[in-house]
Amino acid sequence: MLEKNYIPPHAALQLLLDALANLPLRSEKLELDAAFRRVLAEDVVSSEDLPGFARSTVDGFAVQASFTFGAREQMPAYLTLAPEVLMGESPSFTLQHGQAAPVPTGGMLPGGADAVVMLEDCQRVSDTTIEVMRAVAPAENVVQRDEDIHRGELVLERGQRLRPQDVGALAGLGIESVEVYERPVVAIISTGDEVIPLGLPVRPGQVRDINSFTLRGLIQQQGAIPVCRGIVRDDYEAIRRAVSEALAASDMVLIIGGTSAGVRDMSASIIDSFGAPGVLFHGVAVKPGKPMIGGIIGKKPILGLPGHPAAMAISHALFIRPLIDLLHGAYRKVCFPRTVSALMAKAVSSAAGREDHIRVRLEMCDEVHYAVPVLGKSGLISTLVRADGTVTIAAPKLGLDADEPVSVNLFEA
Amino acid sequence: MLEKNYIPPHAALQLLLDALANLPLRSEKLELDAAFRRVLAEDVVSSEDLPGFARSTVDGFAVQASFTFGAREQMPAYLTLAPEVLMGESPSFTLQHGQAAPVPTGGMLPGGADAVVMLEDCQRVSDTTIEVMRAVAPAENVVQRDEDIHRGELVLERGQRLRPQDVGALAGLGIESVEVYERPVVAIISTGDEVIPLGLPVRPGQVRDINSFTLRGLIQQQGAIPVCRGIVRDDYEAIRRAVSEALAASDMVLIIGGTSAGVRDMSASIIDSFGAPGVLFHGVAVKPGKPMIGGIIGKKPILGLPGHPAAMAISHALFIRPLIDLLHGAYRKVCFPRTVSALMAKAVSSAAGREDHIRVRLEMCDEVHYAVPVLGKSGLISTLVRADGTVTIAAPKLGLDADEPVSVNLFEA
Repeated sequence: MLEKNYIPPHAALQLLLDALANLPLRSEKLELDAAFRRVLAEDVVSSEDLPGFARSTVDGFAVQASFTFGAREQMPAYLTLAPEVLMGESPSFTLQHGQAAPVPTGGMLPGGADAVVMLEDCQRVSDTTIEVMRAVAPAENVVQRDEDIHRGELVLERGQRLRPQDVGALAGLGIESVEVYERPVVAIISTGDEVIPLGLPVRPGQVRDINSFTLRGLIQQQGAIPVCRGIVRDDYEAIRRAVSEALAASDMVLIIGGTSAGVRDMSASIIDSFGAPGVLFHGVAVKPGKPMIGGIIGKKPILGLPGHPAAMAISHALFIRPLIDLLHGAYRKVCFPRTVSALMAKAVSSAAGREDHIRVRLEMCDEVHYAVPVLGKSGLISTLVRADGTVTIAAPKLGLDADEPVSVNLFEA
Repeated sequence: MLEKNYIPPHAALQLLLDALANLPLRSEKLELDAAFRRVLAEDVVSSEDLPGFARSTVDGFAVQASFTFGAREQMPAYLTLAPEVLMGESPSFTLQHGQAAPVPTGGMLPGGADAVVMLEDCQRVSDTTIEVMRAVAPAENVVQRDEDIHRGELVLERGQRLRPQDVGALAGLGIESVEVYERPVVAIISTGDEVIPLGLPVRPGQVRDINSFTLRGLIQQQGAIPVCRGIVRDDYEAIRRAVSEALAASDMVLIIGGTSAGVRDMSASIIDSFGAPGVLFHGVAVKPGKPMIGGIIGKKPILGLPGHPAAMAISHALFIRPLIDLLHGAYRKVCFPRTVSALMAKAVSSAAGREDHIRVRLEMCDEVHYAVPVLGKSGLISTLVRADGTVTIAAPKLGLDADEPVSVNLFEA
């Protein structure tokens, strides 16, 4: 396959997403405490008004606004004191013509009141009377019953990942549990005769397993469940058995490694051996990350990922992240990229026809962020450690100039 | 206190940070699996070279580069086949003059080899001989021993929050456990005679506890441990007892609520009752969030937070987040804000002399993000649910124009 015929990354992803469209997802009922960051599997409609009563937003006096019309410092309105509104209690009285009831911030307005005059705009002139030195309009300094959320309102939509304030809103409505999608389980199979698990001694020619640690963190970050299924040697039957077992116990399978051509071809033929559709693409017009394989076994996505750490990080951003969102029911929501605007600190070149992802370190100079390219081969984990994120060079572009404005896609902790 | 004398938020935060400077932090040793997102309490220096040997970055033939000099398609260099390098093994032979050893991607270079010719630039002409059709320079297609990380190199610094790739690098170096700072414990005390816990019926005049749910999520997001210490009624002795118990069991205390002036003053005098330094500021030139109180009891920060949900979210961004980073040992690292560049969809005004935080919803139109102000009082949780983030208007500015470029600080899930 010629490099110029490699599929662009967005088209490759779309092949996978199309093959997985309308996938049925499992859901579970969770108490609010446990629902933070989970994805809603139901629309949430309020069964009550929030607040359930008109509340004051200031410390002051609940009044009928019309009795304050025209009031000013030189010509105050005189109102008669009604009983005090107590915090958390429903006033047992109704405001009569020309009355004013002391009310704290958050206190409930008594019947008959439609506004609140701020404490600092009033003066007590006797035990029974206050002067109001500023007129208020009806509804002024009041949160109306149902002003926050009204009964029957769609509060949160299916597919929303619950943020702190979303859980707060559910609590405010008295909703104690919600239906959320189950967290997708992502199996990680490391391959390579040279790869040694952490904790064992390495001999010359051998390297420790870096990628399954990095990938586990990336998958956890997104709220999915990574399951490392060990290191399998470069053997067709051994890898096929590992894939078969992983498929039975997960929602997506990642095969890491196989950077040499022979092993890559083996991964592809193993994926195809499970039947159609099998491999959807083999090789993507992106650097680093070119040797990626994407396929479907049954209704589960399976990716063959290059073993180079930087390539794997890009494959994660381009493929694994959106696939996990899909499997988690969160894909339909708009996603805002976590980016920082910066200027390129120096020019970088790029081959036409492939999307380039440049690792960069951010440096601040005179209040401006500069993106400094982190040089080094994509097989070096240190290039990712030294970098704060990546800059994407679109396929037709031949590079970036020094001082060219760019968006840096940040690596997250 | 006059509004114009309120302290600017950055100065208020600095008072707290200065009072907490050089705070000793507790740390613990954790296995790598558990260390993701934790903050390093030690500098990590590599005790070995990564990789420990020169590796090929391509499938090809390990050679002495000088034997390929001048080689091209019309005039290839002829090399004699040496034994094959096997993946994960140390070659038992040394390359002789004019030899080429087949090597897979990631394979170890045999002694005597200093470069690798790519497979596609070679042709096998007999059982013992290959043609090399392209010259390679010394070190070409090779990752040198220690090229990724060298022995004695400072790999990660104290104060670094461990990202997926950082944990990967530690694994690559065979480091099985690291010293990380303990996660700060943040106590949340909700106050208010009108506040009812989730699960109990609410009567007119009462509202459910929203803020402790929102705040718990925000604190968890950052890797700290929120501990909700229940709802305390607006009573000096009851709140003082709750504060005293919370201080003994946490690293920071947050008192939520007390939006009415009387209760605010009570919170301030409770903080002062524990002795100097006590309250450092009371009222901040920011909207929403003005009635904030910041203080120190012993060496622990304590904040009095307004009970309005939107005000609390801003207080979190301006004060709680940086304080948690400080208590977690992560404050000294540069932090890149999670922002999206957008244009204001409509003009908004702001009072001079206070920093305004406008909630906005992001809408995409013709590939441009527009920030649409979400209107509504700061007491409404729905304004946070409908918003994607906030736009800050600096204190001296009188507002933002329509189409003015802004950075939207994103709410996170």
